[in-house]
Amino acid sequence: MEGNHSTAAEGGAGSAGPARTLDELRARLQPGAVLTDPVKTEAYRRDRAEDPDAGTPLAVVRAASADDVQEVIRFAHATGTPVVPRGAGTSLSGGSTAQDGCLVLSLERMREITVDPITRTVVAQPGAFNGEVKAAAAEHGLWYPPDPASYTFCSIGGNIATNAGGLCCVKYGVTTDYVLGMTVVLADGRKVQLGGPRLKDVAGLPLTKLFVGSEGTLGIITDVTLRLVPAQRAPQTLVATFPSLEASTDAVLAITRTMRPSMLEFMDGPTLCAVEDETRMGLDREAAAMLIVQSDEPAGHAGEEIAEIARRCEAAGATEVYSTDDPDEGEAFVAARRIAIPAVEKKGTILLEDVGVPIPRLGALVDGIAEISREHDVLVAVMAHAGDGNTHPLVVFDPTDAAQRERAHAAYGAIMDLAVSLGGTITGEHGVGRLKQPWLAGYLGDDVMELNRRVKAAFDPTGILNPGVMFDEPPRP
Amino acid sequence: MEGNHSTAAEGGAGSAGPARTLDELRARLQPGAVLTDPVKTEAYRRDRAEDPDAGTPLAVVRAASADDVQEVIRFAHATGTPVVPRGAGTSLSGGSTAQDGCLVLSLERMREITVDPITRTVVAQPGAFNGEVKAAAAEHGLWYPPDPASYTFCSIGGNIATNAGGLCCVKYGVTTDYVLGMTVVLADGRKVQLGGPRLKDVAGLPLTKLFVGSEGTLGIITDVTLRLVPAQRAPQTLVATFPSLEASTDAVLAITRTMRPSMLEFMDGPTLCAVEDETRMGLDREAAAMLIVQSDEPAGHAGEEIAEIARRCEAAGATEVYSTDDPDEGEAFVAARRIAIPAVEKKGTILLEDVGVPIPRLGALVDGIAEISREHDVLVAVMAHAGDGNTHPLVVFDPTDAAQRERAHAAYGAIMDLAVSLGGTITGEHGVGRLKQPWLAGYLGDDVMELNRRVKAAFDPTGILNPGVMFDEPPRP
Repeated sequence: MEGNHSTAAEGGAGSAGPARTLDELRARLQPGAVLTDPVKTEAYRRDRAEDPDAGTPLAVVRAASADDVQEVIRFAHATGTPVVPRGAGTSLSGGSTAQDGCLVLSLERMREITVDPITRTVVAQPGAFNGEVKAAAAEHGLWYPPDPASYTFCSIGGNIATNAGGLCCVKYGVTTDYVLGMTVVLADGRKVQLGGPRLKDVAGLPLTKLFVGSEGTLGIITDVTLRLVPAQRAPQTLVATFPSLEASTDAVLAITRTMRPSMLEFMDGPTLCAVEDETRMGLDREAAAMLIVQSDEPAGHAGEEIAEIARRCEAAGATEVYSTDDPDEGEAFVAARRIAIPAVEKKGTILLEDVGVPIPRLGALVDGIAEISREHDVLVAVMAHAGDGNTHPLVVFDPTDAAQRERAHAAYGAIMDLAVSLGGTITGEHGVGRLKQPWLAGYLGDDVMELNRRVKAAFDPTGILNPGVMFDEPPRP
Repeated sequence: MEGNHSTAAEGGAGSAGPARTLDELRARLQPGAVLTDPVKTEAYRRDRAEDPDAGTPLAVVRAASADDVQEVIRFAHATGTPVVPRGAGTSLSGGSTAQDGCLVLSLERMREITVDPITRTVVAQPGAFNGEVKAAAAEHGLWYPPDPASYTFCSIGGNIATNAGGLCCVKYGVTTDYVLGMTVVLADGRKVQLGGPRLKDVAGLPLTKLFVGSEGTLGIITDVTLRLVPAQRAPQTLVATFPSLEASTDAVLAITRTMRPSMLEFMDGPTLCAVEDETRMGLDREAAAMLIVQSDEPAGHAGEEIAEIARRCEAAGATEVYSTDDPDEGEAFVAARRIAIPAVEKKGTILLEDVGVPIPRLGALVDGIAEISREHDVLVAVMAHAGDGNTHPLVVFDPTDAAQRERAHAAYGAIMDLAVSLGGTITGEHGVGRLKQPWLAGYLGDDVMELNRRVKAAFDPTGILNPGVMFDEPPRP
């Protein structure tokens, strides 16, 4: 239950106080837990954002338990050492980029998953992959909905840290909607339990929710209690291609206004071409955009829903509409969407955007992005969780071409400015990390940024937790 | 957008600084906004918790706009005056009980509701009733799901303050799941925008979610942006009576393990009798418990779901199972559940509990409550959102019988202790308020309680916002 299982900040079982040297820390952990050999630590310096300015850590510590995490944070607290937590290292915003002299706290060994089918909850350690949580739930006929495209190789801890989204969010919501509780190691090494397997609990401030999306800046999550729902029905799938971006976003609005499909994804022309290059599945290279839509309603009703969506796509000007109730055939289209990022990555180095707008501005956003692409003379491939207004424009450039690289970075910033000018956000689901930290204060405004800093200071007064993420300076207690 | 519309803490339009006397404040607000006549302020001293120890306010201020709220908070900030915010005054935990010398800040005049059907969101001012928000959404074929039993007379601001639940939560979640953004006046009078009409937004700490359930202790919400979903389908309804509490909770577990009905409510024998006294609708006075279950799946599928639920109720030992696809007939049973609290209130003075447990412990909880009722020799009528494990035991007593009154209060505390011992919470949806404040630290534990205090201090360092709610002492900055 919330907070009833806290342990002392200092002096765990068998230890007189926190470790104060790396050797002392090493002696308290399992053999091989502390890595300092640069050959071994190199892989932990960067995440999927591939920051060229990643620092050199003091050490990488691979915790095997919440006790280990406490030992590490007590050491960090006692010595003022920054800690960069890391799950599977798939952050697209530099949330796990190592800093000089930091401890990279890897949670990759903490992967236990325990499903409670009666309560319909699962307790997972942070290093477990999202896909492993889904698989464990499925063994009991249950489902953990949030599904980042990277779900087969991203960690649930990273999902919590960023309040990750995915493809099913348009109907099933985002990560925070499924988080009931968690165990957290605080910046001083104390361990607390927030929330738990109770579907309703309003006792005290909602600190559980505060941690979902806190990107490792407030504490280290050592396990999380997630709500599960009954298994999803096999979906029916519709694919529609459009001769213009406008027709495709008109169709999105026509659908979302009164319907709630279980998936509503968008790929623009450049994305379609990149995916077709990769898959040779026969996608229309001439199309300006494609929508992939699913309904997971009961069979007869799903057919009606898909038929109505087909009508709305046609009314919006779709060139071709194809639907199928064969789940495997449908999954092939969804797989095409999921490999869109890797497919575009083969065209050059990418800057991956994650901007979102209120749904009615989706058309203005994708039009504006196309204009930014032309103006800056760089390829921008756009894929989107269209039903959420959340887009992933990928700015593609040749890293050996300095001028193009500069244009790409200018386009990247211009896309964020555009989204904000449309009432949108600089990040819908990937997080601020280090990559977007410079844009955060401008987006939030000074007052809200100051509130963020006050909360940060309340949890991490000395600023040792994931410095450089969200905040550019140590907190002011 | 988040935080881009903040205004200065001091010096609003046409004023040189905060009002420092009640007369100055009065001069800046609409005529009749400031009430000091005890005859007029009396109705604002208590909420539905009817705290006999309610204080006498300095004044009641009925704000008509966010600007008015800023004027009030600037005055309070400048003079150190406590502020007790109040929506419709339906708190069951004393969240709006007046304190001596406080300003009661009534938001009853702020009732604007603006639906955006394209974004499928609604912006509502805090004084609007939940039912008015539902009705405004329904005009566009949309639905705001959260449905406290009091939805026709509770305010949306109070719903946000307590993260209110209701009957549909078993399938559709609680208030926080629908809150996308809000405007908040901070303790120093600054106004900030948190979140907005974006379905995904992870830029910065999730402060929006932190406010949902904060019970007026962190800031004053002046409008809220809520997510809407397509209109609910007409439900099919099942009613089952059981010869024992155990049989009824067995049925609950058998249903929730793999199914997600849109409603799963419970009434015990004493509750059934009280409702039958009120309605004369022919409820079984001999039954130990009754379940009311709904399915809002598409028609054919709902029939299958209800049939399967009927089988599971019968297998658990139901005496009688009745189902109907007539929405009006179904609504009559739901109405019976909704009037359960007023019906029991006619039996005496009540202490209303709101304890919740993980679903598998529901049987142990209702059994234990029955035992507490016998041991303390007081009537306890139990109704529950059974599918959430959230129960409302009503301890009934004769206020003129001092000994009975004492036994009732002892039973009230014993029920909370029981719930906590079963891994449950002291409040599932009503909030801590002032009534349960003495139990909060014991439930959360010292470390989590301290975290709560640190967050409170970060937002309200001088402790002027709703003092006595959740926290028993001024924050320590």
